[in-house]
Amino acid sequence: MKKHNFNAGPSILPRVAIENAAKAILDFEGSGLSLLEISHRTKDFEAVNNEAMALFRELLNIPDNYKILFLGGGASTQFFEVPYNFLEKKAGYVNTGVWAKKAIKEAKNFGEVQVLASSEDKNFTYIPKGYAIPTDLDYLHITTNNTIYGTEYHTDIDSPVPVIADMSSDILSRPVDVSKYGMIYGGAQKNIGPAGVTFVIVREDLLGKVSRPLPSMVDYRNHIANDSMFNTPPVFAIYVVKETLKWLKSIGGVKEIQKRNRAKAELLYDAIDNSKVFVGTAVKEDRSLMNVCFVMQEKYADLAPEFLEFAKGKGMVGIKGHRLVGGFRASIYNALPIESVQALVDCMREFEKMHVK
Amino acid sequence: MKKHNFNAGPSILPRVAIENAAKAILDFEGSGLSLLEISHRTKDFEAVNNEAMALFRELLNIPDNYKILFLGGGASTQFFEVPYNFLEKKAGYVNTGVWAKKAIKEAKNFGEVQVLASSEDKNFTYIPKGYAIPTDLDYLHITTNNTIYGTEYHTDIDSPVPVIADMSSDILSRPVDVSKYGMIYGGAQKNIGPAGVTFVIVREDLLGKVSRPLPSMVDYRNHIANDSMFNTPPVFAIYVVKETLKWLKSIGGVKEIQKRNRAKAELLYDAIDNSKVFVGTAVKEDRSLMNVCFVMQEKYADLAPEFLEFAKGKGMVGIKGHRLVGGFRASIYNALPIESVQALVDCMREFEKMHVK
Repeated sequence: MKKHNFNAGPSILPRVAIENAAKAILDFEGSGLSLLEISHRTKDFEAVNNEAMALFRELLNIPDNYKILFLGGGASTQFFEVPYNFLEKKAGYVNTGVWAKKAIKEAKNFGEVQVLASSEDKNFTYIPKGYAIPTDLDYLHITTNNTIYGTEYHTDIDSPVPVIADMSSDILSRPVDVSKYGMIYGGAQKNIGPAGVTFVIVREDLLGKVSRPLPSMVDYRNHIANDSMFNTPPVFAIYVVKETLKWLKSIGGVKEIQKRNRAKAELLYDAIDNSKVFVGTAVKEDRSLMNVCFVMQEKYADLAPEFLEFAKGKGMVGIKGHRLVGGFRASIYNALPIESVQALVDCMREFEKMHVK
Repeated sequence: MKKHNFNAGPSILPRVAIENAAKAILDFEGSGLSLLEISHRTKDFEAVNNEAMALFRELLNIPDNYKILFLGGGASTQFFEVPYNFLEKKAGYVNTGVWAKKAIKEAKNFGEVQVLASSEDKNFTYIPKGYAIPTDLDYLHITTNNTIYGTEYHTDIDSPVPVIADMSSDILSRPVDVSKYGMIYGGAQKNIGPAGVTFVIVREDLLGKVSRPLPSMVDYRNHIANDSMFNTPPVFAIYVVKETLKWLKSIGGVKEIQKRNRAKAELLYDAIDNSKVFVGTAVKEDRSLMNVCFVMQEKYADLAPEFLEFAKGKGMVGIKGHRLVGGFRASIYNALPIESVQALVDCMREFEKMHVK
């Protein structure tokens, strides 16, 4: 049975990236060696690393004064590395859910943290707006897409201080004006690759301003100075990133994927909005184009387990909502084809017909 | 042409691990999804993670009061995480080369560091012995195998304070009495897997004794409490670790691999010792069974580039010495078959015949 992969992350990747990864594992570019067995210092892998960076720069239109890094440790590592590198006195954070909260917690070890806005009052179902941003902050931290609650910033915000954004789950899903950010980071395992590599895009002139000593691995400048090979990088994961970015370019880049992502989201949100059984949880204007969160209308609440089973029987994978919010979540990242969204919509309609007279 | 992979790391892995990794990338255990597309929270991946840990525990005979973690970031990240977690007042370090020095440098950010012994006086060609270990140290840090210089500890040292060992390049190459260590760590990319995952084996009761606040990702206790899934782990790399450990078990475990490693090393060191052209660089009693370092005898020094070309023509990969020491280095990790060592020896002898009358 064909599977429709709505996993929240690690999640669906382009088939061509997967197939090329499998090939490279058996024989890396005709070298007679596996991609897993080569030195990261070989010319052939340096070419992979450089191509991944060049594609990232091209696709997201990253200005030259920003450097790109592929690191280990996940976005969770960035939660403390960001304040380690940037927080001298005071930083502002916007609390849009669990991941933002984790970032806030780590920052508190390094300086004063001001939570400028929060949507916790309504279980993070919206993106706070209209708050003042003090001009004496070292930076403002936001989480642009909130996987658990299905909310997303749809514009790059204006800020008098550098904006540092966790874009783990919506990077490269839409054009971004990188010049409006001080740093953008995230785990790769949604839109750009497998688990095991983290991307950092950082405006170089902002670095080196804190007075504390930095561990070498934490100091982004060391990674920049070594083209992101200060230590052995996650070779395989970077290869898959390169392949995924190549695919994105081949289909027309970020503008095209934004169009596709909008079409997919519209299809699914329309089905939800026109349903008598399902209802969306996020405020409409802040709805995520990456993670569509919905629940059963109250009178059908008992049917939730049945729907999960029903959908599973139709090949739907990963649509159970996060345990903190329950219900359902369909993650419709870049690599998910609209056919899978259509299959889910069909499945929801069929289920609805079975239960609504 | 058959390649003989003497890469220093990332390096050769068992062919069965590579083939199974390629298969799992195309279809993970019949799920219809790629290993790269599944949630790390699925039962099937949790089983992989657990099996990798169980095999590691069994193969190295790791006592129950030690916990096993698979983390991102490489051993270089452990260079600062070790003192972050353990260094309250003073730590002792043994300087056996570049990697030990890097560890020393990071520790100095966190407390007093006493370098108890060093082999720098002879370009790190031996392992220091007979130094006193003060009893007031928080820990003693050693690097058990020094890839660049081809030196290795062949016994577990006795110490009045917990020993923390970087075993990146000789883990699972020989039996180790884990109970003589406070912690053992290393990058996976030599004997146990691909680049992108780092192992930590830590005696749990030693944790939580420093007074500084620890970032959540740095605090080993958080990873222990979450079975090494505090955040999204490097899924693919852990899968390959599991496959590599399965292979090691299938051939007879650590005792058998030690026998094989000794036979391989003996074959190569004998060839070097009986050569008129080549000469080993490390002191005999401290010679590494993992990295065999040698140079040209002085009168043949000019022939080095020619030998590299000659060996390349015979399928030898990765035998150029590290740029800090020059010459040659054959890394003969667990997965390298003795046939490859024989091929190198044959190649050295043939070269010698061409040049020595």
